Amino acid sequence: MKKLLKNAKILKSADGSIENKDIVINEDKIENIYLNGEIEDEKNFEVFDLENKLIVPGFINSHSHTIMSYFKGNADDMSFKEWLFENMLPREELLTPEMAYYGSYISQLEMIKNGITSFADMYMFTDQIAQAALKTGMRAFISRGLSYDNEKGWQKRIDENIETYKKYNNYFGRIKIGFGPHAPYTVNHEKLKEVSQLAKKYKTHIQIHLLESEWERKEYNLKKIEETGLFDNPTIAAHCVYIDDDDMHVLSRNNVTVSHNPSSNLKLGNGICPLTKLFEKNINITLGTDGSASNNSLDIMKEGYIASLLQKSKYGPEKIKINQILRMMWENSAYAFEEKIGRIESGYKADIAVLDLKNIEFQPLEDKKIKSHLIYSANNSNIWGTMINGEWKYYNKKLINIKLEEEKIYENFAKWHKKLEKDFINNNISND
Amino acid sequence: MKKLLKNAKILKSADGSIENKDIVINEDKIENIYLNGEIEDEKNFEVFDLENKLIVPGFINSHSHTIMSYFKGNADDMSFKEWLFENMLPREELLTPEMAYYGSYISQLEMIKNGITSFADMYMFTDQIAQAALKTGMRAFISRGLSYDNEKGWQKRIDENIETYKKYNNYFGRIKIGFGPHAPYTVNHEKLKEVSQLAKKYKTHIQIHLLESEWERKEYNLKKIEETGLFDNPTIAAHCVYIDDDDMHVLSRNNVTVSHNPSSNLKLGNGICPLTKLFEKNINITLGTDGSASNNSLDIMKEGYIASLLQKSKYGPEKIKINQILRMMWENSAYAFEEKIGRIESGYKADIAVLDLKNIEFQPLEDKKIKSHLIYSANNSNIWGTMINGEWKYYNKKLINIKLEEEKIYENFAKWHKKLEKDFINNNISND
Repeated sequence: MKKLLKNAKILKSADGSIENKDIVINEDKIENIYLNGEIEDEKNFEVFDLENKLIVPGFINSHSHTIMSYFKGNADDMSFKEWLFENMLPREELLTPEMAYYGSYISQLEMIKNGITSFADMYMFTDQIAQAALKTGMRAFISRGLSYDNEKGWQKRIDENIETYKKYNNYFGRIKIGFGPHAPYTVNHEKLKEVSQLAKKYKTHIQIHLLESEWERKEYNLKKIEETGLFDNPTIAAHCVYIDDDDMHVLSRNNVTVSHNPSSNLKLGNGICPLTKLFEKNINITLGTDGSASNNSLDIMKEGYIASLLQKSKYGPEKIKINQILRMMWENSAYAFEEKIGRIESGYKADIAVLDLKNIEFQPLEDKKIKSHLIYSANNSNIWGTMINGEWKYYNKKLINIKLEEEKIYENFAKWHKKLEKDFINNNISND
Repeated sequence: MKKLLKNAKILKSADGSIENKDIVINEDKIENIYLNGEIEDEKNFEVFDLENKLIVPGFINSHSHTIMSYFKGNADDMSFKEWLFENMLPREELLTPEMAYYGSYISQLEMIKNGITSFADMYMFTDQIAQAALKTGMRAFISRGLSYDNEKGWQKRIDENIETYKKYNNYFGRIKIGFGPHAPYTVNHEKLKEVSQLAKKYKTHIQIHLLESEWERKEYNLKKIEETGLFDNPTIAAHCVYIDDDDMHVLSRNNVTVSHNPSSNLKLGNGICPLTKLFEKNINITLGTDGSASNNSLDIMKEGYIASLLQKSKYGPEKIKINQILRMMWENSAYAFEEKIGRIESGYKADIAVLDLKNIEFQPLEDKKIKSHLIYSANNSNIWGTMINGEWKYYNKKLINIKLEEEKIYENFAKWHKKLEKDFINNNISND
């Protein structure tokens, strides 16, 4: 049965205005948009009265590591090296597939509650991430994190990436599998060439970490990476904090997408990405949360707010504008992952977030102030509903149509978290 | 009847750990703290079962202009001058006492929902702010914004400040009235001397804007201000972004409190306060939201999060620590305003915030991770209750014991907001 979402205010796209419109959803797609009340005969519809609600495109998280939910709160306020080598890597060694499944699952629930409908993920255990996405109903762009230690290890990870691709790519039209070379400092140029050719063969995208920390600036040159052919594929480069004009030209002429992760960049002490300059060079910029170990929440509205404030601080209060932030949250990510999402438009996937306007964050409530409130005042507490691929996943502030119940997820997550921390402490003792 | 808050986890103070304790509240004060279940006979208590909840001291907002709620969303993404001279000042001219009352009221409701129990305010219409605080039940530190245009205008504002003091100071033990010289660039040194003497006479505090924007750095010298005697009074200086070592010595030796307002400083393009250095100089630092026109929300948890991230970005990820952020939110403000608040301790005022731990923001849920989650993951969506002066103002996520109902406030606020915007547009037309 078709769904009719009526009486809401809607913002169709980043550059749009607030309109009073009704939306008809047919299966996984937005079929059409009508004037309020234009459809007189409602009997053929499942009707949802969304008065006092704001419908916007679902938020898109262009960079994350969902399984890292376990590590949230493990390593705050410390140097990047202490964080990575003493806390993250030793814990990652202890992860098992079952842990991974619940770790990704809980992150996906968090994102759904935050109005996020799609996420990109680069990590190990891609099979479990995909399985969790099948259960939660999220749209997912998953790539196996590829790093080079030796030929055997490399080949194992490449095989896993290909296997996940074959098993899940285009599954239910909700999952895309890309390739995930971790970073130039963990994958040499020869291996980047190999990944590049694989991505071409499978006609899929690349997710990579690029120029996140200051030391990378001196060691890696985007022109050299360009020569590997990597950027011939649709590429999403996370971070790009330490980036100069030459680098920007490389990104621009190759149409590389940047995933800006401001909370993570600040929390790990990496600084502020020169977003304003990237915009001037017409680089396609999106927003990502990074993993819960360096953020520590998966909330694109929060990242958008912080992204805006940081640019104002760095380049003046006129930079950057509300519509630019909204484009980063929506259509720029849709462009990067080549999906008809990020807009409320006939023929687009029915991926939407619903906000409750009867909240103090939307006061003073006036149509012309709503976009400002959405960026500068509202937050995840205002998310009232989330629909993905035409199905409600969160409605009236409750998770629905999720295969596993929240309580069960919490229980399993707690059990595995406890085991992980116990093993970590035991390992540290035996290494002493 | 005494209140028993049982089965909760509590964090007594910034430097404390999570404990399983019950709290007895007698009238406006915390009477005592017991082990969970230590009180066997509950019949003499009004009992509140707060299982799965976290009780913390209520958050304190050390700098705001609550009436500016009307201007939220009026002037984003523009230069400070355009913001101030073309948008704020002309609108402020149009405010009436009745508007002011509802403007402050709605801001106070927002703060209560965000777990804030006390706020400092510097503005016009101090009578209306105090009246609204009497109705909402908030603890308020109010000062009349004093600026010098001519002797008559100055005297009028001074008189208002004194009148408000006489009428409301110590009202119900919830309201303190201070003096509010706006800034060194609007009040000359001679007049600062006058305010200083008045504050001494009335034994009250000073609220002032200090070194917010870069241009102030060149014009004003804290040593000269020190000579006026202003800092002999308990002083809360908002912003202090453009501050050098000499200035810090002045603040430190005079025990001046800084109100750090990170969102506002970023949004208006003023930059990042060198908080880490201020901490090294043992300056008493607190958190403020500033007004809704430059923030655009009144949320101390959000300010704490941003404050931490900015210092990590500027001085490295080890700066600043969780306990420092919590002290800014709680006991440092209590110290500044000379109140027994900001701690959960026998004899302290019963001003508390209650957070729901059964939220995804507190996953993984383990006692030793809770303080990290409180700063880096949780937000106002996790606030479940707020008690001020021993009375619940927000309970189970609903406003209670508030004199005017939320709907009525929204209606009046909307009416006056509409009039204000209409008058503003008409004025602009007639000025063309």
